[in-house]
Amino acid sequence: MLTREENELLTRIGPGTPMGAVMRQYWQPAILSSELPERDGQPLRVRLLGEDLIAFRDSNGKVGLLGANCPHRGAPLFFARNEDCGLRCIYHGWKFDTEGRCLDMPNAPGDRDIRNKVRAKNYRCVERNGIVWTYMGPQAEPPAPPELGWSEVPAEHKVMTKQLLECNYAQALEGDLDPSHVSFLHAPLDPRGQSGYQGTAGILSEKHLSEVALEQDVKARDRSPQISVLKTDYGLFVGARRDAGDRYYWRFTQLVLPFYVYVPGAVGSPLHCNVWQPMDDEHTMVWRIQYLHERAFSADERSRLLTGMGAHIPPEGYLPPSTEPGGAWMPRANRTNDYLQDRGAQRKVSFSGIRGIWAQDRACTEGMGAIMDRTQEHLVGTDATLVQMRRLLLSAAKELKHHGAMPPGIGVVPPIMAASTVFQPKSLSWEQLAKDYMRGKAPATA
Amino acid sequence: MLTREENELLTRIGPGTPMGAVMRQYWQPAILSSELPERDGQPLRVRLLGEDLIAFRDSNGKVGLLGANCPHRGAPLFFARNEDCGLRCIYHGWKFDTEGRCLDMPNAPGDRDIRNKVRAKNYRCVERNGIVWTYMGPQAEPPAPPELGWSEVPAEHKVMTKQLLECNYAQALEGDLDPSHVSFLHAPLDPRGQSGYQGTAGILSEKHLSEVALEQDVKARDRSPQISVLKTDYGLFVGARRDAGDRYYWRFTQLVLPFYVYVPGAVGSPLHCNVWQPMDDEHTMVWRIQYLHERAFSADERSRLLTGMGAHIPPEGYLPPSTEPGGAWMPRANRTNDYLQDRGAQRKVSFSGIRGIWAQDRACTEGMGAIMDRTQEHLVGTDATLVQMRRLLLSAAKELKHHGAMPPGIGVVPPIMAASTVFQPKSLSWEQLAKDYMRGKAPATA
Amino acid sequence: MLTREENELLTRIGPGTPMGAVMRQYWQPAILSSELPERDGQPLRVRLLGEDLIAFRDSNGKVGLLGANCPHRGAPLFFARNEDCGLRCIYHGWKFDTEGRCLDMPNAPGDRDIRNKVRAKNYRCVERNGIVWTYMGPQAEPPAPPELGWSEVPAEHKVMTKQLLECNYAQALEGDLDPSHVSFLHAPLDPRGQSGYQGTAGILSEKHLSEVALEQDVKARDRSPQISVLKTDYGLFVGARRDAGDRYYWRFTQLVLPFYVYVPGAVGSPLHCNVWQPMDDEHTMVWRIQYLHERAFSADERSRLLTGMGAHIPPEGYLPPSTEPGGAWMPRANRTNDYLQDRGAQRKVSFSGIRGIWAQDRACTEGMGAIMDRTQEHLVGTDATLVQMRRLLLSAAKELKHHGAMPPGIGVVPPIMAASTVFQPKSLSWEQLAKDYMRGKAPATA
Repeated sequence: MLTREENELLTRIGPGTPMGAVMRQYWQPAILSSELPERDGQPLRVRLLGEDLIAFRDSNGKVGLLGANCPHRGAPLFFARNEDCGLRCIYHGWKFDTEGRCLDMPNAPGDRDIRNKVRAKNYRCVERNGIVWTYMGPQAEPPAPPELGWSEVPAEHKVMTKQLLECNYAQALEGDLDPSHVSFLHAPLDPRGQSGYQGTAGILSEKHLSEVALEQDVKARDRSPQISVLKTDYGLFVGARRDAGDRYYWRFTQLVLPFYVYVPGAVGSPLHCNVWQPMDDEHTMVWRIQYLHERAFSADERSRLLTGMGAHIPPEGYLPPSTEPGGAWMPRANRTNDYLQDRGAQRKVSFSGIRGIWAQDRACTEGMGAIMDRTQEHLVGTDATLVQMRRLLLSAAKELKHHGAMPPGIGVVPPIMAASTVFQPKSLSWEQLAKDYMRGKAPATA
Repeated sequence: MLTREENELLTRIGPGTPMGAVMRQYWQPAILSSELPERDGQPLRVRLLGEDLIAFRDSNGKVGLLGANCPHRGAPLFFARNEDCGLRCIYHGWKFDTEGRCLDMPNAPGDRDIRNKVRAKNYRCVERNGIVWTYMGPQAEPPAPPELGWSEVPAEHKVMTKQLLECNYAQALEGDLDPSHVSFLHAPLDPRGQSGYQGTAGILSEKHLSEVALEQDVKARDRSPQISVLKTDYGLFVGARRDAGDRYYWRFTQLVLPFYVYVPGAVGSPLHCNVWQPMDDEHTMVWRIQYLHERAFSADERSRLLTGMGAHIPPEGYLPPSTEPGGAWMPRANRTNDYLQDRGAQRKVSFSGIRGIWAQDRACTEGMGAIMDRTQEHLVGTDATLVQMRRLLLSAAKELKHHGAMPPGIGVVPPIMAASTVFQPKSLSWEQLAKDYMRGKAPATA
Repeated sequence: MLTREENELLTRIGPGTPMGAVMRQYWQPAILSSELPERDGQPLRVRLLGEDLIAFRDSNGKVGLLGANCPHRGAPLFFARNEDCGLRCIYHGWKFDTEGRCLDMPNAPGDRDIRNKVRAKNYRCVERNGIVWTYMGPQAEPPAPPELGWSEVPAEHKVMTKQLLECNYAQALEGDLDPSHVSFLHAPLDPRGQSGYQGTAGILSEKHLSEVALEQDVKARDRSPQISVLKTDYGLFVGARRDAGDRYYWRFTQLVLPFYVYVPGAVGSPLHCNVWQPMDDEHTMVWRIQYLHERAFSADERSRLLTGMGAHIPPEGYLPPSTEPGGAWMPRANRTNDYLQDRGAQRKVSFSGIRGIWAQDRACTEGMGAIMDRTQEHLVGTDATLVQMRRLLLSAAKELKHHGAMPPGIGVVPPIMAASTVFQPKSLSWEQLAKDYMRGKAPATA
């Protein structure tokens, strides 16, 4: 339970807020490279941390991120001409490059002083492996962009999708850090059956599928996992231990600040990271990235991952693009249609009656209200991780505001998660497992 | 005319407001039994007095009314599993019974202390004769549910419908307490003709129909009735007297606090009560109940009442259910389409040009704005009743707030209205008529 | 750049605001006569200066403008019966004439005192040559309605259309006072080609068309006109000078307070005035009037003007009437569909990629936000006119508030603009041109 003040501190991320200042110290994933497919193509509306921005790819392929309105008279740069290495406002032809410099001011050509002084609001961008990152913070020399495992692998090694979530980032992030809800919200009624409601990872072998069934079974039998949380340089490392008879079944989850969560997939499934990027106080862009270090996905694997009901929503599940930033990423099953919940299926097949893991999570987190009221909650033992997460973020906000201290994890490269769910002998302690993991040594699969 | 402060006091009924405190001393009609048709069926969103709630019928048929969000982490209980005598949240499986007790906490099974402490917000419910009543007040031992005439008769004796009104309860209630508008808003242009615009009570005999025409004629000729108001233990008793030549034509209206109005129907038509239940400050659920003491309606009568244009709107007149509380009860003729007013009909057939009494009333009360500004009004003699109503409610709010005094009428059984419109000799005084009525003696039909 | 306080002062025009007080000293164009086509016909919702009103044409053809709600109990007068020289409320039959007098109070017929006291909120109206004007100010004896050139000519001499703009009046007005944006926003990519994107005036002769091409060419070559602004008794007179080789190309624009702009059309095209009437702080009704002094338009000319892409939007370009005031005047290309911008056309044909001058302007001014934030702008030389306009209006607001001084231009008849674009010898000075113009002497076309 938080006080009203703590809840405000945790959830408000607009310009001028303490948590907004924390977020701005980290690079933000702004858009997928594929959202700006061509040079001199159509600009894109983007909302990040409560700010309205316009992204564009210039004639050299470089991506820029400018304030949504022209510094001259406030006309919308979304309609601008993207030409000759700059965005040219349709109102008076002022032209800006990706750094926000004014290259041309054709209605005041003689006034070079003004042209040199005027600068479009702009944020530094770096494009790497299919993602455009931006730094919105105050440092003249920003830190290096983060190395997150998936950010280093080529775009072909990743399947990336996004969803617009109509609620604050913190409650969505909390959902990801909660290892116990998988035994309920995402559970089929018959753990051994294939309900089709949770989906599969899509690229598992026969051997893997039988292991998935085994895990499903353990999750159904032990629904109150023992949670252990380790504070790391860059966030949290979490172990959720379930009793599997003669062994323990462990699920490791990792929070990399400020909002990256490495959630365990099924044994043998691709690696998986969720990104809970705050668009504004009441909207979150959720990125889901499945990736392989060693090789690219085949076209077939990619297609199966995209059409499954698991971590990704198939492209046809999206509504047509809207004129709002992020509007193109609204799935068909959403708040306005009760996520297409099927009460019959809820009775017979699926715990939730909602199809697909994403929609199941959306129903719960959006249903808490745009900004959840944490003064009314009642936490239990399995919520330990989110308590730690709040402490980390609240402390970071206070330390930055009062002492100018940098938030944790900037410049730190977190160990790459090699395997996230394992069966281990009961004799192996959390301390030993965590130590192995932190050393970069993958816990051996039992 | 009220001051701005009085208007706020009269209209605001959310948690923590003085008038909200008054409302919470009375039982509230929450839903029709038929809205929860089956045991373990789909839960229902309900908004009452500014609070979002979830109603459900458990395995034993008992109805519960819980806060809309799970006390654990705020997930929406609307999506919950309704099973084995409780509502089970889809997020972590916490299960609550109709009293809000936590029956199961499967992600924290060992923590019995927490489970005993946690309680879902819930309001006591009683189901009687087709209606679920709830008590949202502070008393550990609430008063007995009200006896209102129609609340005691079996569901088969009643035709009940509801409408979602997009305005504050008080202006809607005032409309019902105003005996003079029937001569205008609900009038056909030719009082002797059947316009089809006002509808008929639907079950009248030939003899009754000629009496209806007589009444219509009197209402058309005397449009400025003499109003007499008597304060009762439970509200107001109102007589509106019109000159009918050698006799007086009386219409008796009764307000039973906090929001029940017994409006006179035509001679020989069923008894009739309107309920103006405040959903929140800007939405009102209007219940209309026509009922018979002595017998059930026949299927034919019921069908004619429901398809008539009178007090009830036919089921096909409703828009499809929406995901908002009460959304299913929005009629097709509403604010967004100007109530389908027909200007041609207004010229030739009907005073208003709007079909149906309900839609006529909606057009006027919603058109005042979500919360009417009573600092701008100009009342006249025929508005005497609503002046008294405001005094009653404002005084109740002040008395409760400053002296803890219970509002009037709680526990009082109002006399049942036997006949509401009568022709009486001119020699019979209001005092005599009212005295007879209060003694429970029905005024004899002349 | 304005301070936040100045921006508020400039933009807020509701009752009780200083700029609202300025606006109320001038007559407002309320509706087109054609919007109330018949006597005793359907009333019309109108919003002016933040006030909701109802316009109606009575049995004698006289137009009245009353407050939207009945003074009795606030019922909406939109639904009223328009009959026998008055508007009769459907709730209780109170009837008001065009002056707001209560003619009948049938539910309180004996109470003549009340009836004489009650008065519907109403504003004096004058109907002249196809337009209904209203005076909303405090003077018992208002000034004479304005003479604006087009207001004196018969309706047949004018083509008038309206558009509902979803932003504050001031940023829209500023767009009209900016002579430099025509070289960009409204420009075809090939100044000599006919893009079909800007439209033509529709009634030009072959000779005129070649002059239009010449002007287009000059505008394309000199995109930074020299601006000269002259303060007049009634507003501003503006000259924008472009170099046309051996001559100067002048465009004269005139602001007549509070919101009339005479924008130069092409040589030989009809005269043209834009009216930026504030509906409320975030909505503006834009009137566009093309007119001829000497004769009526032919049916053919009228039809070509209405179906062109220039100053007027064809009637089929409007969305169906809505129940909101002004809703009928929303064009199909609007904010919700990004003004149907065509990125392909933007690359090949048109600077903006948006069809039609109106839609081009809308995209820019609405895209600034409902109320533009002028604390972030960077003005240049060609913005001189709007700086002067702000000074005029801000000073008028302060003078009226602090010293009760009437704003400028009331009762002044501005000189009629005879020709608005001209080629002149370079030897002719601005001072000379302006002096000639002010004397009512049309500058000779070179």
